[in-house]
Amino acid sequence: MSLHPTIPASKVEGTAVYNLDGDKLGSIDDLVIDKRTGHVRYAALEFGGFLGIGTDRYPLPWHLLRYDTTKDGYVVNLDRDLLTDAPRYARGTEPPQTDDYGRTVFGHYGFDWQS
Amino acid sequence: MSLHPTIPASKVEGTAVYNLDGDKLGSIDDLVIDKRTGHVRYAALEFGGFLGIGTDRYPLPWHLLRYDTTKDGYVVNLDRDLLTDAPRYARGTEPPQTDDYGRTVFGHYGFDWQS
Repeated sequence: MSLHPTIPASKVEGTAVYNLDGDKLGSIDDLVIDKRTGHVRYAALEFGGFLGIGTDRYPLPWHLLRYDTTKDGYVVNLDRDLLTDAPRYARGTEPPQTDDYGRTVFGHYGFDWQS
Repeated sequence: MSLHPTIPASKVEGTAVYNLDGDKLGSIDDLVIDKRTGHVRYAALEFGGFLGIGTDRYPLPWHLLRYDTTKDGYVVNLDRDLLTDAPRYARGTEPPQTDDYGRTVFGHYGFDWQS
Protein backbone atom coordinates (compact mmCIF):
# COMPACT_ATOMS: atom_id res chain seq x y z
CA MET A 1 0.00 0.00 0.00
CA SER A 2 1.22 3.41 -0.88
CA LEU A 3 1.25 5.72 2.13
CA HIS A 4 1.38 8.79 -0.03
CA PRO A 5 -0.68 8.05 -3.11
CA THR A 6 -0.62 10.94 -5.49
CA ILE A 7 -3.00 12.18 -8.10
CA PRO A 8 -2.66 14.73 -10.87
CA ALA A 9 -4.55 17.89 -9.97
CA SER A 10 -6.22 17.66 -13.35
CA LYS A 11 -7.80 14.40 -12.23
CA VAL A 12 -8.98 15.65 -8.85
CA GLU A 13 -11.39 17.78 -10.76
CA GLY A 14 -14.47 15.65 -10.95
CA THR A 15 -13.64 13.51 -7.89
CA ALA A 16 -16.79 12.71 -5.93
CA VAL A 17 -17.50 14.19 -2.51
CA TYR A 18 -19.67 12.33 0.01
CA ASN A 19 -21.22 13.21 3.34
CA LEU A 20 -20.77 11.08 6.45
CA ASP A 21 -23.80 8.98 5.49
CA GLY A 22 -22.16 8.04 2.21
CA ASP A 23 -24.47 10.13 0.04
CA LYS A 24 -22.79 11.77 -2.89
CA LEU A 25 -23.02 15.52 -2.49
CA GLY A 26 -21.28 16.53 -5.66
CA SER A 27 -17.76 16.77 -6.94
CA ILE A 28 -14.66 18.87 -6.88
CA ASP A 29 -14.59 21.52 -9.55
CA ASP A 30 -11.12 22.90 -8.92
CA LEU A 31 -8.36 23.13 -6.34
CA VAL A 32 -6.97 26.42 -5.17
CA ILE A 33 -3.37 26.32 -4.09
CA ASP A 34 -0.96 28.65 -2.35
CA LYS A 35 1.27 29.81 -5.18
CA ARG A 36 4.40 29.65 -3.10
CA THR A 37 4.07 26.71 -0.77
CA GLY A 38 2.11 24.54 -3.18
CA HIS A 39 -0.35 23.57 -0.48
CA VAL A 40 -3.95 23.17 -1.48
CA ARG A 41 -5.84 25.80 0.51
CA TYR A 42 -9.34 25.03 -0.55
CA ALA A 43 -11.33 22.98 -2.97
CA ALA A 44 -14.15 24.42 -5.01
CA LEU A 45 -17.14 22.11 -4.77
CA GLU A 46 -20.06 21.98 -7.05
CA PHE A 47 -23.08 20.28 -5.59
CA GLY A 48 -24.89 19.52 -8.80
CA GLY A 49 -28.20 20.78 -7.54
CA PHE A 50 -28.02 18.91 -4.24
CA LEU A 51 -30.23 20.62 -1.64
CA GLY A 52 -31.37 22.95 -4.39
CA ILE A 53 -28.02 24.66 -4.19
CA GLY A 54 -27.61 24.98 -7.95
CA THR A 55 -24.39 25.38 -9.79
CA ASP A 56 -22.57 27.83 -7.55
CA ARG A 57 -19.09 26.83 -6.45
CA TYR A 58 -18.49 26.48 -2.72
CA PRO A 59 -14.89 26.89 -1.63
CA LEU A 60 -14.17 24.55 1.28
CA PRO A 61 -11.03 24.55 3.40
CA TRP A 62 -9.03 21.55 2.32
CA HIS A 63 -8.80 20.11 5.80
CA LEU A 64 -12.56 19.60 5.87
CA LEU A 65 -12.08 16.97 3.19
CA ARG A 66 -10.91 13.52 4.13
CA TYR A 67 -9.83 11.20 1.37
CA ASP A 68 -11.47 7.79 1.60
CA THR A 69 -9.61 5.14 -0.33
CA THR A 70 -12.55 2.72 -0.24
CA LYS A 71 -14.78 5.30 -1.92
CA ASP A 72 -12.02 6.74 -4.08
CA GLY A 73 -13.50 10.08 -3.15
CA TYR A 74 -13.56 12.69 -0.42
CA VAL A 75 -15.78 12.67 2.63
CA VAL A 76 -16.87 15.85 4.32
CA ASN A 77 -18.88 16.49 7.48
CA LEU A 78 -21.05 19.32 6.25
CA ASP A 79 -23.99 20.66 8.15
CA ARG A 80 -26.66 22.17 5.96
CA ASP A 81 -26.86 25.23 8.18
CA LEU A 82 -23.22 25.95 7.45
CA LEU A 83 -23.93 26.00 3.74
CA THR A 84 -26.88 28.37 3.88
CA ASP A 85 -24.74 31.48 4.13
CA ALA A 86 -21.46 29.95 3.02
CA PRO A 87 -19.13 31.79 0.64
CA ARG A 88 -19.89 30.85 -2.94
CA TYR A 89 -19.35 32.14 -6.42
CA ALA A 90 -21.10 31.61 -9.70
CA ARG A 91 -19.89 28.99 -12.12
CA GLY A 92 -17.54 30.57 -14.64
CA THR A 93 -16.52 33.39 -12.31
CA GLU A 94 -13.46 33.53 -10.10
CA PRO A 95 -13.23 34.85 -6.54
CA PRO A 96 -10.33 37.12 -5.48
CA GLN A 97 -7.16 35.08 -4.99
CA THR A 98 -6.24 37.02 -1.89
CA ASP A 99 -5.65 36.58 1.82
CA ASP A 100 -8.85 38.50 2.50
CA TYR A 101 -10.94 36.05 0.56
CA GLY A 102 -9.12 33.09 2.08
CA ARG A 103 -9.81 34.48 5.54
CA THR A 104 -13.49 34.81 4.70
CA VAL A 105 -13.72 31.23 3.50
CA PHE A 106 -11.73 29.73 6.35
CA GLY A 107 -13.46 31.91 8.93
CA HIS A 108 -16.85 30.68 7.86
CA TYR A 109 -15.87 27.11 8.70
CA GLY A 110 -13.96 28.02 11.84
CA PHE A 111 -10.46 27.66 10.44
CA ASP A 112 -7.50 29.98 10.73
CA TRP A 113 -6.30 31.05 7.31
CA GLN A 114 -2.64 31.28 8.25
CA SER A 115 -2.50 27.94 10.01
CA MET B 1 0.20 42.76 -0.89
CA SER B 2 -1.18 39.32 -0.33
CA LEU B 3 1.24 37.12 1.56
CA HIS B 4 -0.49 33.98 0.46
CA PRO B 5 -1.73 34.60 -3.06
CA THR B 6 -3.64 31.65 -4.35
CA ILE B 7 -4.28 30.31 -7.79
CA PRO B 8 -6.65 27.69 -9.11
CA ALA B 9 -4.75 24.54 -9.99
CA SER B 10 -6.46 24.63 -13.36
CA LYS B 11 -4.66 27.91 -14.03
CA VAL B 12 -1.23 26.73 -12.91
CA GLU B 13 -1.27 24.51 -15.93
CA GLY B 14 0.39 26.59 -18.57
CA THR B 15 2.30 28.83 -16.15
CA ALA B 16 5.75 29.63 -17.51
CA VAL B 17 8.94 28.24 -15.98
CA TYR B 18 12.23 30.12 -16.27
CA ASN B 19 15.82 29.32 -15.49
CA LEU B 20 18.02 31.55 -13.34
CA ASP B 21 19.04 33.58 -16.40
CA GLY B 22 15.42 34.44 -17.07
CA ASP B 23 15.11 32.25 -20.16
CA LYS B 24 11.77 30.56 -20.52
CA LEU B 25 12.27 26.81 -20.34
CA GLY B 26 8.72 25.74 -20.82
CA SER B 27 5.59 25.54 -18.77
CA ILE B 28 3.80 23.48 -16.19
CA ASP B 29 1.66 20.76 -17.66
CA ASP B 30 0.09 19.45 -14.46
CA LEU B 31 0.51 19.34 -10.71
CA VAL B 32 0.66 16.10 -8.79
CA ILE B 33 -0.64 16.28 -5.26
CA ASP B 34 -0.67 14.03 -2.23
CA LYS B 35 -4.25 12.83 -2.13
CA ARG B 36 -4.48 13.07 1.63
CA THR B 37 -2.46 16.09 2.67
CA GLY B 38 -3.24 18.14 -0.40
CA HIS B 39 0.38 19.16 -0.76
CA VAL B 40 1.73 19.51 -4.25
CA ARG B 41 4.49 16.91 -4.49
CA TYR B 42 5.73 17.61 -7.96
CA ALA B 43 4.99 19.54 -11.06
CA ALA B 44 5.07 18.00 -14.49
CA LEU B 45 7.02 20.26 -16.81
CA GLU B 46 6.95 20.28 -20.53
CA PHE B 47 9.89 21.97 -22.13
CA GLY B 48 8.41 22.58 -25.51
CA GLY B 49 11.42 21.32 -27.39
CA PHE B 50 13.94 23.31 -25.34
CA LEU B 51 17.36 21.63 -25.48
CA GLY B 52 15.91 19.20 -27.96
CA ILE B 53 14.05 17.58 -25.10
CA GLY B 54 10.84 17.12 -27.01
CA THR B 55 7.40 16.74 -25.54
CA ASP B 56 8.14 14.40 -22.66
CA ARG B 57 6.90 15.47 -19.24
CA TYR B 58 9.52 15.95 -16.54
CA PRO B 59 8.23 15.60 -12.99
CA LEU B 60 10.10 18.04 -10.74
CA PRO B 61 9.91 18.16 -6.95
CA TRP B 62 7.79 21.16 -6.09
CA HIS B 63 10.44 22.70 -3.86
CA LEU B 64 12.74 23.15 -6.83
CA LEU B 65 10.28 25.71 -8.15
CA ARG B 66 10.29 29.21 -6.75
CA TYR B 67 7.40 31.47 -7.63
CA ASP B 68 8.54 34.85 -8.92
CA THR B 69 5.82 37.47 -8.68
CA THR B 70 7.63 39.86 -11.03
CA LYS B 71 7.68 37.19 -13.74
CA ASP B 72 4.31 35.74 -12.80
CA GLY B 73 5.98 32.40 -13.31
CA TYR B 74 8.22 29.87 -11.63
CA VAL B 75 12.01 29.94 -11.57
CA VAL B 76 14.04 26.79 -11.34
CA ASN B 77 17.77 26.20 -11.01
CA LEU B 78 18.14 23.31 -13.41
CA ASP B 79 21.43 21.97 -14.59
CA ARG B 80 21.29 20.37 -17.99
CA ASP B 81 23.23 17.37 -16.72
CA LEU B 82 20.49 16.67 -14.23
CA LEU B 83 17.95 16.51 -17.02
CA THR B 84 19.86 14.11 -19.23
CA ASP B 85 18.83 11.05 -17.28
CA ALA B 86 15.94 12.59 -15.36
CA PRO B 87 12.66 10.73 -14.87
CA ARG B 88 10.24 11.54 -17.64
CA TYR B 89 7.16 10.17 -19.27
CA ALA B 90 5.59 10.57 -22.65
CA ARG B 91 2.89 13.14 -23.23
CA GLY B 92 -0.51 11.53 -22.80
CA THR B 93 0.78 8.80 -20.51
CA GLU B 94 0.73 8.76 -16.75
CA PRO B 95 3.44 7.55 -14.37
CA PRO B 96 2.59 5.36 -11.36
CA GLN B 97 1.04 7.45 -8.59
CA THR B 98 2.99 5.61 -5.93
CA ASP B 99 5.57 6.16 -3.25
CA ASP B 100 8.07 4.22 -5.33
CA TYR B 101 7.76 6.58 -8.25
CA GLY B 102 7.83 9.61 -5.97
CA ARG B 103 11.02 8.31 -4.41
CA THR B 104 12.58 7.89 -7.84
CA VAL B 105 11.70 11.43 -8.85
CA PHE B 106 12.76 13.04 -5.59
CA GLY B 107 15.89 10.93 -5.34
CA HIS B 108 17.06 12.07 -8.74
CA TYR B 109 17.09 15.67 -7.56
CA GLY B 110 18.48 14.89 -4.12
CA PHE B 111 15.25 15.25 -2.17
CA ASP B 112 13.73 12.99 0.44
CA TRP B 113 10.27 11.82 -0.63
CA GLN B 114 8.84 11.65 2.88
CA SER B 115 10.12 15.02 3.97
